[in-house]
Amino acid sequence: MERRKFLKTSALGSVGVAAGTLAAPAYAAGKRRLKMVTTWPKNFPGVGTRAVQFAKDVEAATDGDIKIKVYAAGELVPALGAFDAVSGGKADIYHGVDYYWQGKHKAFSFFGAVPFGLTPFEVVQWLYFGGGQELWDELSGQFNVKPLLCGNTSMQMGGWFKKEINSLEDFKGLRMRIPGMGGEILKRLGATPVTKSGGEIFLALSQGNIDASEWVGPWNDLAFGFYKIAPYYYTSVFHEPAANVAAGFNKEVWESLSKSQQAIITAVAGDNHQKSVAEYNAQNIIALRTLVDKHGVQLRQFSPEIMKRLAEVASDVVREVGETDELSRRIYNSYMETRKNCMDWAEIADEPYAAARRLPENYGEKI
Amino acid sequence: MERRKFLKTSALGSVGVAAGTLAAPAYAAGKRRLKMVTTWPKNFPGVGTRAVQFAKDVEAATDGDIKIKVYAAGELVPALGAFDAVSGGKADIYHGVDYYWQGKHKAFSFFGAVPFGLTPFEVVQWLYFGGGQELWDELSGQFNVKPLLCGNTSMQMGGWFKKEINSLEDFKGLRMRIPGMGGEILKRLGATPVTKSGGEIFLALSQGNIDASEWVGPWNDLAFGFYKIAPYYYTSVFHEPAANVAAGFNKEVWESLSKSQQAIITAVAGDNHQKSVAEYNAQNIIALRTLVDKHGVQLRQFSPEIMKRLAEVASDVVREVGETDELSRRIYNSYMETRKNCMDWAEIADEPYAAARRLPENYGEKI
Repeated sequence: MERRKFLKTSALGSVGVAAGTLAAPAYAAGKRRLKMVTTWPKNFPGVGTRAVQFAKDVEAATDGDIKIKVYAAGELVPALGAFDAVSGGKADIYHGVDYYWQGKHKAFSFFGAVPFGLTPFEVVQWLYFGGGQELWDELSGQFNVKPLLCGNTSMQMGGWFKKEINSLEDFKGLRMRIPGMGGEILKRLGATPVTKSGGEIFLALSQGNIDASEWVGPWNDLAFGFYKIAPYYYTSVFHEPAANVAAGFNKEVWESLSKSQQAIITAVAGDNHQKSVAEYNAQNIIALRTLVDKHGVQLRQFSPEIMKRLAEVASDVVREVGETDELSRRIYNSYMETRKNCMDWAEIADEPYAAARRLPENYGEKI
Repeated sequence: MERRKFLKTSALGSVGVAAGTLAAPAYAAGKRRLKMVTTWPKNFPGVGTRAVQFAKDVEAATDGDIKIKVYAAGELVPALGAFDAVSGGKADIYHGVDYYWQGKHKAFSFFGAVPFGLTPFEVVQWLYFGGGQELWDELSGQFNVKPLLCGNTSMQMGGWFKKEINSLEDFKGLRMRIPGMGGEILKRLGATPVTKSGGEIFLALSQGNIDASEWVGPWNDLAFGFYKIAPYYYTSVFHEPAANVAAGFNKEVWESLSKSQQAIITAVAGDNHQKSVAEYNAQNIIALRTLVDKHGVQLRQFSPEIMKRLAEVASDVVREVGETDELSRRIYNSYMETRKNCMDWAEIADEPYAAARRLPENYGEKI
């Protein structure tokens, strides 16, 4: 007994006492080294660099108590193996868009991107003020994952096409790289959706294996050089008005973190989401001007007839995902409620304002 | 010497050793109790409750190392005394909209709200990816303040009117509560802008001292009951498409915080900005339905002729603020550059998408 008492007050013991006195669970839990697997190529602009920034911000805010090592796709596991790696404990966090896991459960698509769905900041409204986060926790929890919204590609573009799309007929037989629900929509218009990772698209386009491809937006698309092969850039987005990037934690790892560490990571994730949208929007317009002014890219919009048909088919495709099971139905209905609220408010506030700001009487010239 | 050595390894000493070993500047700096003065009534929904949430989040993320006591307007200093209190060190942080300090420097208006200016998330783009934060640091730094974007009222509404505004003539002689640049614009149309704090508006309207008032949006406006006196609710916003809420720190206090504490507060502020926009949007549409369906409020929009004239006059007013001095000019030009980028990108991406999402072929019904 005496010896044990001594040990408790020895060097090692005093750390515990000190930490206890100061109520420091961050220290009590010790320093952590976490592995984050991503679905992105090394240092891929926007989503990949944002993963690195998230890790840096967590390290700075925890004063080095939590260091996150970021792995590019393929370094520890393949891009689409990220979810299983985290679910099974081989990695601690994944950084990716949840529609990649629709093979696990179709409802993951609602947390990734939804055709004609919510924009990036409407997603924030759904998650935090429309019940979305609880539903996401429930879905991901079935796979031993705790998800946080951590980034966004912001609004994407319709895609790159070798030939103009002037009518619905032009989709027939078209081989287009487009994943998820967007791909299913085009399939029903007669196209053949093809799945390729970002790094494979350019070669597939240049070798004639595909006729068209969507990827992200001007910033990311310029970097891959698609304009060299497919000169028509359709700006009309219908499939991914937002692609939400999740930081999905292994649930035991998440629960082993102290309350203050969880609070830090939650705030850092939210801050990075907001900044990633802003960064994409800032970079997209610059890249778009380069594409048009320097590379002579032809911007196109799908005709009203095409958009109308895309909307009709999207209604079926999205609803069918919502009908997968009881949980999918609750997710669908919750999503639709926020979507209606957002559209009603935008009709009163944002949309008339956008029009008013375009009045030629308005200012804007530098002084 | 022996006694001093003993003291160093005693209970108190061992805390220092433990903290030192663990490289814990948060602990080395000690626990902090900071005073945050706000420009809001106690628990005012949205901005006031968000100030309390910000304080709670900082406390949770620092594991209680930083506790922020939130003071409502008038508790420690009057609402409009918040800036001086922080600048002079009587308080540590203010929580308010920076146009309140336009008497200190006109350029503060650019960091509060700008007629026909940036929307809440475009403000994020300006601050972090358009040079805005550096300019804000420079301006506020002259007054010993370090500012962070920490909240937002989101897009506001045009305001409450006792009589309809059908032509420019109707502004002549109108006594309207509207602060800042918006007030200056109406003044040039012949109205008399009046300054009143939120809590004074209802009485002023009911006693006939003013004929009209803007405040925030449906959520906050419903709470004050303006609809009982001024039945026409003009939704056309021109003066405050965003009202950015700042957390302004006394600069010495900010610099006395450890790097990790600064990182935590920066992330918590960003996360609260994002959530405050989402919360306002979520609450506004619900409150708007209550106003219309339950209270029979008449929604109105200013005519194209009126909007055109407001835009013309706003151009003069905003530019004149930009011409105040050399720093104002740099702020104005930087703001205009981001504004042009945002409008160009929205024209390609967000605006066509908003129209496409309204197609009647689109989904939305619950299942």
